[in-house]
Amino acid sequence: MARINEDYRKLKAGYLFPEIGRRVARFCAENPQANVIRLGIGDVTEPLPKALIEAWHKAVDEMAVRTSFRGYGPEQGYDFLRNAILAHDFAPRGATIEADEIFISDGSKCDSGNILEIFGADNKVAIADPVYPVYVDTNVMAGRTGPADDRGRYAGLVYIPTTAETDFVPPIPTEHVDLIYLCFPNNPTGAVATREQLTRWVGYARANQAVILYDAAYEAFITDPAIPHSIYEIPGARDVAIEFRSFSKTAGFTGVRCAFTVVPKSLVGTTAGGESVPLHSLWNRRHTTKFNGVSYPVQRAAEAVYSTAGREQVRQIIDFYLTNARLIRDGLQQTGLKVYGGVNAPYVWVKTPGTESSWDFFDRLLTHAHLVGTPGSGFGASGEGYFRLSAFNSRENVEEAVRRFRKVVG
Amino acid sequence: MARINEDYRKLKAGYLFPEIGRRVARFCAENPQANVIRLGIGDVTEPLPKALIEAWHKAVDEMAVRTSFRGYGPEQGYDFLRNAILAHDFAPRGATIEADEIFISDGSKCDSGNILEIFGADNKVAIADPVYPVYVDTNVMAGRTGPADDRGRYAGLVYIPTTAETDFVPPIPTEHVDLIYLCFPNNPTGAVATREQLTRWVGYARANQAVILYDAAYEAFITDPAIPHSIYEIPGARDVAIEFRSFSKTAGFTGVRCAFTVVPKSLVGTTAGGESVPLHSLWNRRHTTKFNGVSYPVQRAAEAVYSTAGREQVRQIIDFYLTNARLIRDGLQQTGLKVYGGVNAPYVWVKTPGTESSWDFFDRLLTHAHLVGTPGSGFGASGEGYFRLSAFNSRENVEEAVRRFRKVVG
Repeated sequence: MARINEDYRKLKAGYLFPEIGRRVARFCAENPQANVIRLGIGDVTEPLPKALIEAWHKAVDEMAVRTSFRGYGPEQGYDFLRNAILAHDFAPRGATIEADEIFISDGSKCDSGNILEIFGADNKVAIADPVYPVYVDTNVMAGRTGPADDRGRYAGLVYIPTTAETDFVPPIPTEHVDLIYLCFPNNPTGAVATREQLTRWVGYARANQAVILYDAAYEAFITDPAIPHSIYEIPGARDVAIEFRSFSKTAGFTGVRCAFTVVPKSLVGTTAGGESVPLHSLWNRRHTTKFNGVSYPVQRAAEAVYSTAGREQVRQIIDFYLTNARLIRDGLQQTGLKVYGGVNAPYVWVKTPGTESSWDFFDRLLTHAHLVGTPGSGFGASGEGYFRLSAFNSRENVEEAVRRFRKVVG
Repeated sequence: MARINEDYRKLKAGYLFPEIGRRVARFCAENPQANVIRLGIGDVTEPLPKALIEAWHKAVDEMAVRTSFRGYGPEQGYDFLRNAILAHDFAPRGATIEADEIFISDGSKCDSGNILEIFGADNKVAIADPVYPVYVDTNVMAGRTGPADDRGRYAGLVYIPTTAETDFVPPIPTEHVDLIYLCFPNNPTGAVATREQLTRWVGYARANQAVILYDAAYEAFITDPAIPHSIYEIPGARDVAIEFRSFSKTAGFTGVRCAFTVVPKSLVGTTAGGESVPLHSLWNRRHTTKFNGVSYPVQRAAEAVYSTAGREQVRQIIDFYLTNARLIRDGLQQTGLKVYGGVNAPYVWVKTPGTESSWDFFDRLLTHAHLVGTPGSGFGASGEGYFRLSAFNSRENVEEAVRRFRKVVG
């Protein structure tokens, strides 16, 4: 009699975005005339730049000819892409990593979930609250937690409440933890961490022989030149951190699928017997045994992100979204609400009016403004009373959304 | 102090194909003039057919225009592809599954490893021997086994020796097991299971409330009209089986990346308390939480596999490989060696001469014939003394490989 993984049954309700999808679908079915504007799920809206499309077509054509056809590629990704990433994203920032420490994958969501497989079950895991729900859910599914309490917090996880008082940067924990998820620019709050704040985190990890799981999927949105794009810009980080990067938001790849994860060879975990084992070798084993590489033409399109034309065209799109973010931020601030993020990130994080709950605010905006955002409580107990709006939309929709928002809230 | 998953340390040596890669690379470095022919790793060699390339280009162009651009798609895959699969691969064969039981993914290797996550740790797992190594390794990595013995067999797994006496179809186990991996047409042996044999397996699974993990990645190579392509052609199978399919070998997608897994809604597992839980809901949760869908243009290329032109063009390539397989099979038979497979599968499975070990035979063929195959022992203890050759190569190389083989062995 085949037994199921009962840890799945601990998961609370649906994953956040499907639940939003259900509510919006119901509203649209009941109000077919409503012109709903979606600033909820963080999905890009602008088409892919020309340089990427050209590279993609060229690689597809290679697949049509025997002499240039490519079958299985290296599971870790082609060198042309690993080298381009190194040369543009890391080397110029003084981040001392190597090309073969970069593992190309089909998504950061996959990697941030799968990475748990190389760690033992007995690690103490810390997450910020609010947080990207996948970090939590994948720990639950992997049996690393007990059941959830009334606020949705799972036994066994260390939650670090992250509030406006610390500019939504999680404070250093007072207790010992082994694994720490950090995400900057932050989803959902749009917060960034300064060099000093990251240096303190690296110091904590070194002192505790902990591993930082650093999600930098939104680094392309950093506008402040003083803010680090990679944790490896911090001295000593390569001994304590794994970094997740993605082309999803950088280059509009949410439907294209390409990301990468950096696992430095100097980063080790330990056995029960106290032996140090490089995490690079474990992740390499996981990657080669349970993954078969990213579509070759997609890797060529990703490579084009780093071409001269590609960089310029991608920059224009990022700037477009950042202007959207500024418009949302400015418009919301004029309602008197407290507004965060939206400067170095595509997300604006807003305090709901008075004591209104996140989901009540969601329903009110949907019903009265035909506007979809993301309830802050969907990101954790400390997100209650907040609301996330994303800058991924047309200028026209963003401006209209702000007008509607101000009508309902202002 | 971050602890590693020590189950990884139980894994024996490298995964089979990287080890072959190392030996071949060393030989090539020492013998740069050698014209090595690779019939080892089962990777396709023929370029993608025109209909698929056209569909792929068209979808890439859609990504360049705002009105047709697609971001995140449904994690489970687009309906256009799920419906095409249903209409062509299942419905005409009387396999009663539904479109939303089909989960599109980026590879069967990924799926066959990841599927373990939805099952409890306490299931008894049976695998045929020889077997595709990923089934074994992913169980080891997930902590479902003890250490390996001298023959490479892991404690806790139920090995079903699969020999020439049963035409390389695993006999029904005499003990109770909960999960059973079956693969037809088989990798590595090229064997197929008859309707009667599969009916017995389905009967066993029903009687034992076991789940069959059915790998049909090579179904397109079936030439015998009496042989089932899907386990769902067997009455009652949808209550006991998950099926893995892939475009990798069917349509030359090893570098393109698209596959699918069928999880019928009538298939359940049980909790410790005896409650039945649909595996479909668990896999859907896994898929939506830890995966973000397959590249949209790749799904369009996969859809084109089912167009009138696509089906014809794909058929020509399959026939080409099948002719290669026949040439290998016939050529090897003339050396007096015992030869299996190669009729309904792209793999030919040959008994090594006398008592020669699989790796000795590998080294001999590499050194004296500059020919790369796959040692049978790499697929399990019962594969010792066998050798796999794949039909994926040019006609010229296949003919030359047979000539060289006969020179060394004949």
